[in-house]
Formats: sequence, structure tokens, C-alpha cells
Amino acid sequence: MHPLQHPPAVVLMTDFGTGDTYVGQMKGVILTIAPETRIIDLTHAVTPQDVTEGAFLLERALPYLPPASIVVAVIDPGVGTSRRAIAVEAGGRRFLAPDNGLLTTILDMHGSGACVEVTNRQYIAPERSRTFHGRDVFSPAAAHLASGIALEALGPALDPASCMKLAMPGCTALGKGVWEGGVIFSDRFGNLVTSIDSSLAAEEDRWSLVLPDGTALPVQETYGNVPEGEPLAYRGSFGTLEVGVRDASAIERFGLSRGERIRLERL
Amino acid sequence: MHPLQHPPAVVLMTDFGTGDTYVGQMKGVILTIAPETRIIDLTHAVTPQDVTEGAFLLERALPYLPPASIVVAVIDPGVGTSRRAIAVEAGGRRFLAPDNGLLTTILDMHGSGACVEVTNRQYIAPERSRTFHGRDVFSPAAAHLASGIALEALGPALDPASCMKLAMPGCTALGKGVWEGGVIFSDRFGNLVTSIDSSLAAEEDRWSLVLPDGTALPVQETYGNVPEGEPLAYRGSFGTLEVGVRDASAIERFGLSRGERIRLERL
Amino acid sequence: MHPLQHPPAVVLMTDFGTGDTYVGQMKGVILTIAPETRIIDLTHAVTPQDVTEGAFLLERALPYLPPASIVVAVIDPGVGTSRRAIAVEAGGRRFLAPDNGLLTTILDMHGSGACVEVTNRQYIAPERSRTFHGRDVFSPAAAHLASGIALEALGPALDPASCMKLAMPGCTALGKGVWEGGVIFSDRFGNLVTSIDSSLAAEEDRWSLVLPDGTALPVQETYGNVPEGEPLAYRGSFGTLEVGVRDASAIERFGLSRGERIRLERL
Repeated sequence: MHPLQHPPAVVLMTDFGTGDTYVGQMKGVILTIAPETRIIDLTHAVTPQDVTEGAFLLERALPYLPPASIVVAVIDPGVGTSRRAIAVEAGGRRFLAPDNGLLTTILDMHGSGACVEVTNRQYIAPERSRTFHGRDVFSPAAAHLASGIALEALGPALDPASCMKLAMPGCTALGKGVWEGGVIFSDRFGNLVTSIDSSLAAEEDRWSLVLPDGTALPVQETYGNVPEGEPLAYRGSFGTLEVGVRDASAIERFGLSRGERIRLERL
Repeated sequence: MHPLQHPPAVVLMTDFGTGDTYVGQMKGVILTIAPETRIIDLTHAVTPQDVTEGAFLLERALPYLPPASIVVAVIDPGVGTSRRAIAVEAGGRRFLAPDNGLLTTILDMHGSGACVEVTNRQYIAPERSRTFHGRDVFSPAAAHLASGIALEALGPALDPASCMKLAMPGCTALGKGVWEGGVIFSDRFGNLVTSIDSSLAAEEDRWSLVLPDGTALPVQETYGNVPEGEPLAYRGSFGTLEVGVRDASAIERFGLSRGERIRLERL
Repeated sequence: MHPLQHPPAVVLMTDFGTGDTYVGQMKGVILTIAPETRIIDLTHAVTPQDVTEGAFLLERALPYLPPASIVVAVIDPGVGTSRRAIAVEAGGRRFLAPDNGLLTTILDMHGSGACVEVTNRQYIAPERSRTFHGRDVFSPAAAHLASGIALEALGPALDPASCMKLAMPGCTALGKGVWEGGVIFSDRFGNLVTSIDSSLAAEEDRWSLVLPDGTALPVQETYGNVPEGEPLAYRGSFGTLEVGVRDASAIERFGLSRGERIRLERL
């Protein structure tokens, strides 16, 4: 039976870290229900409770996740409150997540197919902890999807428009060769990741990123193009433009926070 | 052939961290012998050489591990000495561990089925390093179990009562609505994890945890119920009561160490 | 069909860390192309851009990697430059790596079978980022190997002698009972890992490691044999001799760097 030979992969993204047994418990639950599943750790190092960062990382990674995979995304500051657990088809994958905006970018970019609230007690743990729905709700529901149940079996249909959306920094054309976006987050090295897609800054032209204080940073091929301690703009590994400082921290240098406006201009 | 389509999962718990190739080498050994195995990293971040912490974490995670899975637990300060390597059936799983008390809680809670010393050279590495039995003894033995050999094939039978036991902090009823337990360990955030099961503190009543110095901390639903810098008791994610300080460290505040007595009282 | 039931494992070694989604994206690409693959994380914590350390760790781990496995090794400071991507058969496994010396030890110890440059656009991502060939070149090529294509299909044959080699610290006999090697790297604890194989210091004799400044450290069974704060030599977990300081850092104490000469002498 072919479907059982290649069950869909389950992809995990959380802010749980790997210093505890939490992620291990989730995997135990998944392989109990669906023993043939391949599990991919997308990352467990999202900044704790940072739903916006999670939403950005998820959308950026999406093209590299197996088609038909089941994505469990748990950045869930509202766990234990009345926030809903949702399951959504989008972009060729199925997503399980708290209804707190974590799927904002996925739904904005890819639209939504089937969308339900996860309530069917047949597919979640009979006793649910107040604090660990990653293990007690999302993992068993994902494993049952991997085993072949339909998404619609997880609970009552929802209007996708009713799902919570975050105001993500976007990117809009201001004119010919000028775009405006915003800061999404700063990575572990203090680089500022923007919402401006790198493909807008075509490599055959020269470009600057302009910060709110008017500082204009030419978009460089590599860190090596500027001296130590100097700032630069560059095409980052998330596929968007970033602001960095060679061997130092851009967040410390410029003190920008999420949502602050950044402009891309052709020189 | 069904058994080969769903070989049992192998669960790994160590104090090796993931900064080296040690865990990767263990997985290489397992997949060399049993290429179809699913491997679950329960955690590799047990406090180095802390057998008591490992014993606690293992028992707490057990309900979430796949039935019939094979658990390799290596917190092994005595590696290279004459301590035995043991294999034990308990709680529906099979465990491989050094005989140093790491299985104390598993054996106390679930009793023991078959129990052997792991000595059969057919199922362990012909040349064993002095320091890395995780790779040279426990991983190959686990992989052979996953491949279908009987636990009894690993070596001579042992009386389970001869296996080393740790004096784990327990939990005893002192009277109506009063229990006494102890501190098990402090987690990465400085929270004190106790041995008092959260289910004893039924949510419809009000409760206090009483520290050795007489401090009584009401059991709260959430950290949000106390101001920053204030201590509280709460139902922790291991299923036992914990003592924390909002945005600070309870171990620094109260200076309690393992085994110190904690009382639960109904108000 | 047997080959599909046991596809070869894919082993990953990188310096990407696990704090980002990079490794997760690589796994997504691999399981998209070859959904049945078992993936082993050898380590993602190689010191960033330290090709020599990576070469050492890879060779040391090789005996524990499944026969016929496919090893993707990405420590790649030259990504985006004209350095070649290579695929090589050696030691019974197939390796995918940048041609920057990362396979030096593998090729030195095991020789080379087939060796090609990875250029066939059929087996790598159609659009390749400038900075993430781990995802766009090495992962898809590895997955296609796992799916059964021949290594030769990845691109034009190369003379293995044309592959870049690093000058790795070696180990040479200076006389009866005297060998000279060098420092390879210092681990996370500040221990100095040498290139002198532990098996040279046979346990039935007594030995000293002699540092460049003339300090002679007896080779000890265990850290416990010296007082706190004192230096010692010992047989390390990589299978080579190491220099440590009990509860302190040998790199700080002795200030040795890579390649400095260390002598082993029988007492």
C-alpha cells in the first residue's frame, strides 16, 4: 500500500529549545500514533513567545519543506487560555498551530484551503495539560493526519478570515526603483532582518538601504567589502535584505526595533 | 513481514550535549545494525553526571514514549569502572542503562520484567573504549533489540532487586490534606522542581507549599498572579509542583538543595 | 524491492548550529527528494569556518557511520566563490563537500574511488543562493544519491589528486618509543586535542606528553589522578591524546595553538 510506504513528513517548529525533554515527548507521541513518520526539526530556537519571528521564519522555510508535509508550529504564549487550536491547508502543506497569528504569512502568501478548529477528542490527548498543547493537542492531531485522516475530521470548519492575523512588516513600492519595508527581527548576531525581498535589489544595479535616521547603506555582495566595525546592507540567507555591522552588532549600533521603516533605493 | 515494517523506536537520553559528535556516533552505530530504526532524542542536556535528575526526567517522560520502544539512557559517571551495564523490561518498554540508579524511578513505579547484565560480545562492540559505552555497549545492544533479538540474549539474568537504587525524594501523606515531598532539582531557570505530584493539589481547593524555613507560598495558576521578583508555587510542566520567582531564580532566593523537605498543605 | 526498503542513511556535519532553520531546510530538501531517508546529525557545532577541525572530526567518526552512507559535510567559508563542490567515494561511504580540504583526512586515510565535481543541474537546485549551498547543492545531490543515482551522474570526473588538501598536524615516529604530533584544536572545555593516536601509548607502559616549552605531563588514566587546577595528559574520546587541566582550561594555561608540536615519550 503506497501511501503507507511514504507517509508525509511532520515538521516541527517551536520555541521550546532542546535543553528539556519537551520536544522529545512530542516526538514520542507522534511515533506512538504514526510509527513510520519522518520528523524534521525546522528549529526549536525561535525567540521565546515571539509569534512574529515564528511567522516570518515559517514562511521563508516553506519552499524547502516536503510537499504534503504536516507542519506543527508552536509558539504559544496564550496556551491555557481560550485561544483556539487550528488546522489549515495552505501552500500544499497542512499546518497545526495556535490561532494567534503564527500562520499570518502562510495565509497571506498562499491563501487557505480547508480550515478547522482542532477539537475532536478522538484525535487529541484525553487529558490535556494546561501548559503543553504541543504534546497533548498538536502532536497527536499531526500524527493522525500523517496516518491518513482528513483534516476536516479534526473539528468544525472555520472561516479562514476569522483566524487571527498579525500586522507583519510588509514591503510596498513607493515609486520606480524605491520600496519601503520594515525590520522583522534581529538575529543572534545582531543583524537586522528586513521584510524587503532580496530579489527586488537586482544584482545588475546598485542599491542602498536607507534607515529611519537617513543613513544610506550600499547593498554589498559580502561582509568582506567593508572594514571591520563598519555597517553594510546585504542579501541575507532568509531571502530578504539585512543590515549588519562587520564583526559587531547592528541592533546595538542603530537601535532599531521591529516594524521601523526601511527604504530600498536604486542608485 | 510486519515486525520489520514497524521496528520499535529507539529513544536516547544522555548528558552528552549536542556540541560534539558523540550522539551522532551513537546514531551511526544504531543505524548500521538496524537501518530502519526511528530514533527519538528525548534530551541530551541532562545536567552532566546527574543520575538523579536523569532518573526523574525519564520516569516523567515515560507515558509519552512509544509502547515497545527501546530506551538508551546514559548518564554514566562510573563508565570505565566495574559498574554493570543492564537491560531491563519495565513499563512496557525495554531500557538499557548503566547500573547506577538511573532506572530507580522506572523500576519503583513499574516493576521489572526480564533483567539481564549486558555482556554478550555478539551484541556489543568487539573493542570497547574506556569512556564511551554509550556508543560501544548501549547503542549496539539497543540496535540488536530493535532488530528482534530477545532481551535475554544480551547476557545472564539478574535479580532486579540487585540493581542499584537511588534514594529519590518521594512524597508521603502526613495527614488529611497534608503531604511531604522534596526538592528533586533546579531547572535552567532556577525553578525548584519538587517530587509532589500536581494532581494532589486539586484545582477546586486552595493550597500552599511550605519551605523548610516556614515560608508558605500559595499555589498559583500562573506566574502572572504575582508581581515581578516575587516567589510562587505552581503546577509545573513535569507534572509536579514547583517553586519559582517571577523573572528571577528560586534557587538563588531560597538556596534549597536536592532532598530538602517541602510540605503541601490545603488552606 | 530491497534497495528501497533500506536506502542509505544521510549523515550531516556542518558549522550552522541549530539556532536557525538552516539545518531544518536541508532536511526538508532531502526528504522532498528521497522521502525514505534516515538522517543522522553528526554535529552542527563545528567551530564556524574551521575546516581543519571539521576534517579531524569527520575522520574520527567515520568508523561509526553506516556502511554505504552518504556524508554531507559543509564547513564552507568559500561559499559563493569559485571553489568547487565535490563528490567522492572513500572508506566505503560517499562524501559531498566543498573542495576546500574538508575531506583531507578521509582521502589521506582511505584513498579515493570515484571523484566528480557536482555540476549537473538535474541534481541540484535550479536557483542557487550565493550563501547556502548546503541546502541548494549538497542536500539535493545527497538525496539523489540516496535515491539510487550513480555518483558519476553528478558531474564530470575529477582527478582526486586535484582536490584541495590541508596540512593537517600528523604524527611521526622520532625513534623507539618517541613520536611527534601536533595540536589539532581545543574543545569547548579548553582541552587541547592532539594528533597522536592513543593506541601508541600502550597502557602497559608509562608515558609523557612533552609540550613545546619542555613541560612533561604524565599520561594519566583519569582526571581524578591530579589535584584541581593541575594539568595532565590523557587518552581522549576522539582516540587521540589530549592535554587538560582539571576544572580549568589548558588552552588558557599553555596558550598553544593549532599545529604546535607535541612529543610522546615512553618513560
